[in-house]
Amino acid sequence: MAPGTLRAVEDCSRFFSRSARAMRESAIRRAGDVRAPDLVSFAPGFPDPSLFAWDEFRDIAQSLLDGRDPTVLQYGPTRGYRGLLELLPEILAERGIAATVENVIVTTGSQQALDLCGHVFADAGDAILVELPTYTGAITAFGNTGARLAGVKQNDEGIDLADADRVLARERSGGRRVAFVYVVPNFQNPTGNLMSRSRRQALLEWAARRDLLIIEDDPYGSLYFDDVASAGDSRPLKADDREERVVYLSSFSKTVAPGFRVAWIAAPAAAIAKLEIAKQSADLCTGGLDQRIVTEMWRRGTLTTRLPLLRATYQRKRTIMEQALRRELPREISWPEPKGGFFLWASLIEPIDSDLLLPRAIGHGVVFVPGSAFFVEGSGARFARLAFSWPTVERIELGIRRLAEVVREACGVSGSARPAAAPAREADSAATKTVP
Amino acid sequence: MAPGTLRAVEDCSRFFSRSARAMRESAIRRAGDVRAPDLVSFAPGFPDPSLFAWDEFRDIAQSLLDGRDPTVLQYGPTRGYRGLLELLPEILAERGIAATVENVIVTTGSQQALDLCGHVFADAGDAILVELPTYTGAITAFGNTGARLAGVKQNDEGIDLADADRVLARERSGGRRVAFVYVVPNFQNPTGNLMSRSRRQALLEWAARRDLLIIEDDPYGSLYFDDVASAGDSRPLKADDREERVVYLSSFSKTVAPGFRVAWIAAPAAAIAKLEIAKQSADLCTGGLDQRIVTEMWRRGTLTTRLPLLRATYQRKRTIMEQALRRELPREISWPEPKGGFFLWASLIEPIDSDLLLPRAIGHGVVFVPGSAFFVEGSGARFARLAFSWPTVERIELGIRRLAEVVREACGVSGSARPAAAPAREADSAATKTVP
Repeated sequence: MAPGTLRAVEDCSRFFSRSARAMRESAIRRAGDVRAPDLVSFAPGFPDPSLFAWDEFRDIAQSLLDGRDPTVLQYGPTRGYRGLLELLPEILAERGIAATVENVIVTTGSQQALDLCGHVFADAGDAILVELPTYTGAITAFGNTGARLAGVKQNDEGIDLADADRVLARERSGGRRVAFVYVVPNFQNPTGNLMSRSRRQALLEWAARRDLLIIEDDPYGSLYFDDVASAGDSRPLKADDREERVVYLSSFSKTVAPGFRVAWIAAPAAAIAKLEIAKQSADLCTGGLDQRIVTEMWRRGTLTTRLPLLRATYQRKRTIMEQALRRELPREISWPEPKGGFFLWASLIEPIDSDLLLPRAIGHGVVFVPGSAFFVEGSGARFARLAFSWPTVERIELGIRRLAEVVREACGVSGSARPAAAPAREADSAATKTVP
Repeated sequence: MAPGTLRAVEDCSRFFSRSARAMRESAIRRAGDVRAPDLVSFAPGFPDPSLFAWDEFRDIAQSLLDGRDPTVLQYGPTRGYRGLLELLPEILAERGIAATVENVIVTTGSQQALDLCGHVFADAGDAILVELPTYTGAITAFGNTGARLAGVKQNDEGIDLADADRVLARERSGGRRVAFVYVVPNFQNPTGNLMSRSRRQALLEWAARRDLLIIEDDPYGSLYFDDVASAGDSRPLKADDREERVVYLSSFSKTVAPGFRVAWIAAPAAAIAKLEIAKQSADLCTGGLDQRIVTEMWRRGTLTTRLPLLRATYQRKRTIMEQALRRELPREISWPEPKGGFFLWASLIEPIDSDLLLPRAIGHGVVFVPGSAFFVEGSGARFARLAFSWPTVERIELGIRRLAEVVREACGVSGSARPAAAPAREADSAATKTVP
């Protein structure tokens, strides 16, 4: 640099786009960033790594990496590895969904699927209907389109269609196109809610009458708990979609491992073609080794034969967590029984605010996600999402004991449910990030 | 579905966003989709898979998948695997770039890096300055922001700064903010051009005077050819960026393998923080196994010790292609000598149009990317990008012989350079997609 042209280094933020200036860290807490020693984390929706099929992964990787098939590590087709594309219709058929290779695309995790769907189906200024509460990853991905997220109430049967009609009318009268309705019918993130069969049917009919697109996110459907649910209960909306108005998302992150970033979308062929173009500029293609490992797991039958073990393990953890909660906090916390999936949605009694409880909980060695992270309209302060999927049963019991101390303290012993502001702020900065 | 509510299936395109309606298949040809038997492909910028370190990948995967470290396959931090984040400053230091962990983020391939940079630095209605011609993946990623891509001429020294000033004045007088200048200084895709040292210096000074952000894309920098270039010639702009105005992109796709989707961005810490938020909604995290394999390659020293072999192999292929072109097409094609990287940028004599030549070439068993795919302003018809990186030397010679037949036919024997429209259209649909 010639003398005289060297200027003081300015803040590079002057180069940011308007949308970057508006970007905020997701309100959801990334427990992985909280580095307190011996912390019990109920925050992230991580699968239990003791269920990962290490021996099989090693064996499969060994054979895939023998160099005989150079395409394993070459750039691959944007739509996905052909072997995986060909088996996805089989996986879908097991869930009652009729699909061909033309109806599927592989994505780099379901988060990419949400991002691509946002781009392909929503414009800035549109409205997107989401459940209250809903998955934070959908909130951020859909929010990036510049669309407005409009929350619809849900009850224990699922999305409240009377409220959906009110919201729909409100948004349309505001001049907004409603781009789609986003739902997680099976063991919803964060509530664990299982949409009833009749509500599924009613939702499809409701969407037909209003000619709306449904985006159905189903990462947990095969993880139902045998003691309270069956495969039939988690039958996807897409299985009964006779009008091509459901775009279906699912993933191998919960049943194989999330470190392999492999998920997929099933949708009408014309939509898949657009999603493919969007994926071309997003990342060209999903990892080749990851796609083949998942494919080979299916070919060996292991993906299916392992499901009962996964279901039993998560069911047991749910039971352990429920028992511990009943034992430690019989009056302070209530929850709907999780019938599958990873999450227990705790409702705290007044006057506890879960955002304010969090820093205290971290101080006591336990972390969760405050309910407010999942509500697009600012409510949710009395809820906490407790993921029972990741910690061991011993750690679940330890964590609930710690939580009980904090909650009881907040309820009375300390004389106030509102801790000092300073620690809240501190823990906040340590814990804010997106988690699954 | 109740009788009466079932309606005829309509085209799902009524649900598409405005931006999805505007999406078109990239003009660039995806040779991988052309399924003629025995086709020689000079189209995609694929690395040579015979250079993939299969034995090492297998050995590393074996040890990573032993189950002792469950985080290998768990969801990982959005910014990247800590081990990789910590070594990126070392890799950057070898290229003359000073960086800390705060200055880097891992991306799912460089295509994601381009996509994230588009979101973080450009808004709809902005202008982005790109070289004429430039990489198609950048064209689609940046185009998705709704920004206008303004082409700037380049000569054999690199981007033409006098033309850049003209374009800058034109865009600003049109009321557009210029978001950034995108350049590929090392062995540019598609021209193979190596920006001269003095032009690099001049570009930095020019950007400083106009206070512009530079996005420097450098996938090929370590693949210089010893017979005509040295490491010093490919020193990144970022190495001399004293004002934090360069965002630097690089990748392991060309030096390890593209099937591992691992690339990175080096930028000011504040920009990295925004890019991380953008990546959270794009795909949560990059594949865990992929990141660790690349990291372990570096730790073992193999990443560096293999580079001379890579350089020598691609240099030899370049020489083979040049010799074949001189032998077969001494008058019909000229080109600047590639000093590194994967591409030879052929200039065809009048009246040959490479878009029209393509279907004939495919008919003769050889495929390339027509120059028009790389120009944002509609020109480029007399150019063809020939990638010498992927085919074996025997196939390169065979492919150039086939190309020679087609070119000579177009020049005279057939009496016309314009083939019939029908086959052009057909091959077009078979070959259009994005390639690296």
